Amino acid sequence: MITSDSAIAEYAGFARHLSQIAGRIILPHFRAVLAVENKETGARFDPVTIADREAERAMREEITRVYPSHAIFGEEHGVTAGRESLTWILDPIDGTRAFIIGQLHWGVLIALNNGERPIVGLMHQPYTGETVLGSRMGAQWSRDAECNAIKTRSCARIEDAIVCATDPAMFKRNGEREAFDAIARRSKMRRFGGDCYSYCLLAAGLIDLVIEAALKPYDIQPLIPIIEAAGGVVTSWSGKPAYAGGQCIAAGDRDLHRLALEVLSGAANDS
Amino acid sequence: MITSDSAIAEYAGFARHLSQIAGRIILPHFRAVLAVENKETGARFDPVTIADREAERAMREEITRVYPSHAIFGEEHGVTAGRESLTWILDPIDGTRAFIIGQLHWGVLIALNNGERPIVGLMHQPYTGETVLGSRMGAQWSRDAECNAIKTRSCARIEDAIVCATDPAMFKRNGEREAFDAIARRSKMRRFGGDCYSYCLLAAGLIDLVIEAALKPYDIQPLIPIIEAAGGVVTSWSGKPAYAGGQCIAAGDRDLHRLALEVLSGAANDS
Repeated sequence: MITSDSAIAEYAGFARHLSQIAGRIILPHFRAVLAVENKETGARFDPVTIADREAERAMREEITRVYPSHAIFGEEHGVTAGRESLTWILDPIDGTRAFIIGQLHWGVLIALNNGERPIVGLMHQPYTGETVLGSRMGAQWSRDAECNAIKTRSCARIEDAIVCATDPAMFKRNGEREAFDAIARRSKMRRFGGDCYSYCLLAAGLIDLVIEAALKPYDIQPLIPIIEAAGGVVTSWSGKPAYAGGQCIAAGDRDLHRLALEVLSGAANDS
Repeated sequence: MITSDSAIAEYAGFARHLSQIAGRIILPHFRAVLAVENKETGARFDPVTIADREAERAMREEITRVYPSHAIFGEEHGVTAGRESLTWILDPIDGTRAFIIGQLHWGVLIALNNGERPIVGLMHQPYTGETVLGSRMGAQWSRDAECNAIKTRSCARIEDAIVCATDPAMFKRNGEREAFDAIARRSKMRRFGGDCYSYCLLAAGLIDLVIEAALKPYDIQPLIPIIEAAGGVVTSWSGKPAYAGGQCIAAGDRDLHRLALEVLSGAANDS
């Protein structure tokens, strides 16, 4: 599977274009009265908004129009098969809970997967106008006319690390919470409440670790090319590729990643 | 202590002016490499930035220039006595931890206290350009040219409530965490990571409860006029005025406030 630099640049530009389409649809629903449906019948609260579904539908239409042979895998509307191995992975609103209560750490997530791994990844926050983009051509954080290359920072010790997770309630399996807490307790600072935004802060060298569980493929694949292009590493808790979601760890520093895995691997469910 | 409507309007405008001064100083330091000092010598991590100190100094200079008889109480530089009972309460960056890791839920907090209670309150987020302002003249959320009146929403049951707190680690005293958890478990949703921003979301009718502990007077006083003008209520966990900080609860609905106090009052330390 070889994709040329010019193709990567084209797809990265198209990902930006898609995120603008999604953002324009989503933004009027942000902090408006929302018709929140409940995706699951069980007790867990999993809000799905009109914005989520309409934004994904518009992105799918645009992909089908421009790249009719590409496949699509979206959070809301599932899989559309393609005639080649390229698949667009769409999460129109990552951080739905943050979105519905008016917080700012949510975003449109888009990845292009080449059949093996994500090769272009993007996070877009329509309210702040920020876009974070990564591919083997590099990682950039842009807002309005500004566009800056980003890179992760060095941090070789857990004791010096700032560690984030979206919510302690995501650690549901045996030993997950204990493993997270073992790192958080040793760290310099631990913050909850980030969703996709935390991974972008890590890529920009503002935090050192994101440790999460129970992720979906579309939650993590768009963030992997960003973090890798910025110099960081994303794996499962046992050090394997994180493309499938589940238990994920992102680190800005490879030594820190190794040290964190020593703690997490005992609670890994894919080892 | 009587303050006329025209005086309130003038002070509210001045609070906006102060927040712009602070924002212009703070913003260049946001997501830049920060010289983070450690305010305490103990193990607790309490970052203070150059931005924090410079922004407060500039606000104090402007207050002294325009209202030389007013008193000032700021997070960074303490108390300056005045010749009348009006005191400006300043917290240049509420949510310092969020600020230093590049998150967005932090803000400039400003209150005017009349010797008894805060009568004007303001939150300003310089990166997003948002300002939330409250006084007996009303509560507004503004951004760029947009300015909307805000009000809290009805929510009479804990089971229907969305409850926020900045961090579970803020509940340090006996029974505090248990009391918070007792409400959070019954609630529809519980989110961590908000600082001042959560109180503004409550005033705007997007969440229902903020329950916190270990607050300082300058953390909460600027938010009280906003929430009260929007129709909500802020008290200590025993239902007393929350001007001194400590254990605070904000509710958008008075019935919900009463129900939450029934749970929290057992862990109240001012009853």
